[in-house]
Amino acid sequence: MNRKELFDQIQAKKSMLCVGLDVDFDKMPEHIKALALDGEAAYKGEIFKGKARSIVEFNKAIVDATAAHCVAYKPNLAFYECYGIDGMRALDATVDYIRTKYPEIFLIADAKRGDIGNTAKMYAKAFFEEMDFDAVTIAPYMGADSVTPFLEYKDKWAIVLALTSNASAYQFQNAQKDGKPLYQAVMEEMMEISTPDNMMFVVGATKADKLQELRGFCPDNFFLVPGVGAQGGSAEEVIAHGANDHGGLLINSSRGILFADHTENFAQVAAEVAAKTANL
Amino acid sequence: MNRKELFDQIQAKKSMLCVGLDVDFDKMPEHIKALALDGEAAYKGEIFKGKARSIVEFNKAIVDATAAHCVAYKPNLAFYECYGIDGMRALDATVDYIRTKYPEIFLIADAKRGDIGNTAKMYAKAFFEEMDFDAVTIAPYMGADSVTPFLEYKDKWAIVLALTSNASAYQFQNAQKDGKPLYQAVMEEMMEISTPDNMMFVVGATKADKLQELRGFCPDNFFLVPGVGAQGGSAEEVIAHGANDHGGLLINSSRGILFADHTENFAQVAAEVAAKTANL
Repeated sequence: MNRKELFDQIQAKKSMLCVGLDVDFDKMPEHIKALALDGEAAYKGEIFKGKARSIVEFNKAIVDATAAHCVAYKPNLAFYECYGIDGMRALDATVDYIRTKYPEIFLIADAKRGDIGNTAKMYAKAFFEEMDFDAVTIAPYMGADSVTPFLEYKDKWAIVLALTSNASAYQFQNAQKDGKPLYQAVMEEMMEISTPDNMMFVVGATKADKLQELRGFCPDNFFLVPGVGAQGGSAEEVIAHGANDHGGLLINSSRGILFADHTENFAQVAAEVAAKTANL
Repeated sequence: MNRKELFDQIQAKKSMLCVGLDVDFDKMPEHIKALALDGEAAYKGEIFKGKARSIVEFNKAIVDATAAHCVAYKPNLAFYECYGIDGMRALDATVDYIRTKYPEIFLIADAKRGDIGNTAKMYAKAFFEEMDFDAVTIAPYMGADSVTPFLEYKDKWAIVLALTSNASAYQFQNAQKDGKPLYQAVMEEMMEISTPDNMMFVVGATKADKLQELRGFCPDNFFLVPGVGAQGGSAEEVIAHGANDHGGLLINSSRGILFADHTENFAQVAAEVAAKTANL
């Protein structure tokens, strides 16, 4: 998906919301968990049983309820890999379901990969060819080598970690390079090898002053902003200080939407929370 | 596997070699590639066909030929994920084959994961519970949060990227923190939350002066050293300047062993190269 199509979708839906599909079986409603013990179900000829069945049914319900209120979904790979091959099959089915039923949606693999060039090329192949994601999150520690293979695909995106939202984010991201904090050096140097049409940054900043600082040297790129909802940040403040005239923001909420309710009504409640999160 | 068992194996085999199982279908011998078009084969009741069949047969042959000459195998996840679900099944079968037939071997998932605490916990579950690896490589960009969940497993290891061997390694790894290069800050701060019994570092240093510098502030931890063989470094120099009295080194070679020969004799040639690499 290109930048114009993404911005068109933001304007049409009046939303900058990205829903993080961080499926955690233990946190699912009881009636969805129960499916894991209840035989099997088919999706496009593939059989799903056990936890994989619950994951697929949970995701389908969440997606159907929230697709009108968000522009992107972001499965975090860890939450599928931890269920082994069955978890990866459930991820494939989820991606296929979204692609088939909601083709306007921007799909992010939150994988935080990062490896030497010939290996990064294989990861790009995995997420852009074997699976049909629009974007992959990438850790910058190994430098430009680990990012460039992702930039060679038309209308696909690298989303590089700049400033994350976790407690130990500043432990290394605030190291200094040429008198600047590392997160700024990462962003500026990644901007040199890319364009705002194929590079976004993960920016876990929900405060006005930090967003203004980042927009000062990076006015055009999309920021993927975690840390609203369950992690406490305000989407309104992020939009007020982080948006630009091409949209410029994907605001992620995961647990705050997925697990807002634990009853049979969970999808409806997820829709209500989604409709109120990161709307314009 | 604990540190003593690893050191015992190094002494028994007189080797510090880790073989990187970076399977690349396109580089395999023709007769192994041909298996992808030749029906199917079973491994423990699971059916493998297509490229997955070639990968499993290639790995079994390489492992049988080299297990006497190495102490560790290190599949890089990218080279399996790029073949989708079938690639991950081939990885599972490879891990099972090594675990069953060569239980003394140290098994590293070269995954370079790194995410916030609740997500890192899921990755630890994936590699230590769902799969049976001894160790996982981890990117430190997000700080201590992303490493601690891996340290909570007895006799399992986190292998944190410190100084890598790729061309753009120094782009960010040489940023400064408290007057020290970032790679040193990473190592020292990771040493504070771990012990030499559950923490190793990726150190892509094959020169005497750099190895001496690193051993100056990190005398006890194992270093996983890439960059010998195809990438040009000398295992002899690494051993001379990087070993300590508990072994202290796993020296990786991937392509230089796997693809040393492209004929029906590939496994025998791989064994000969392995026997001469990182031996004591």
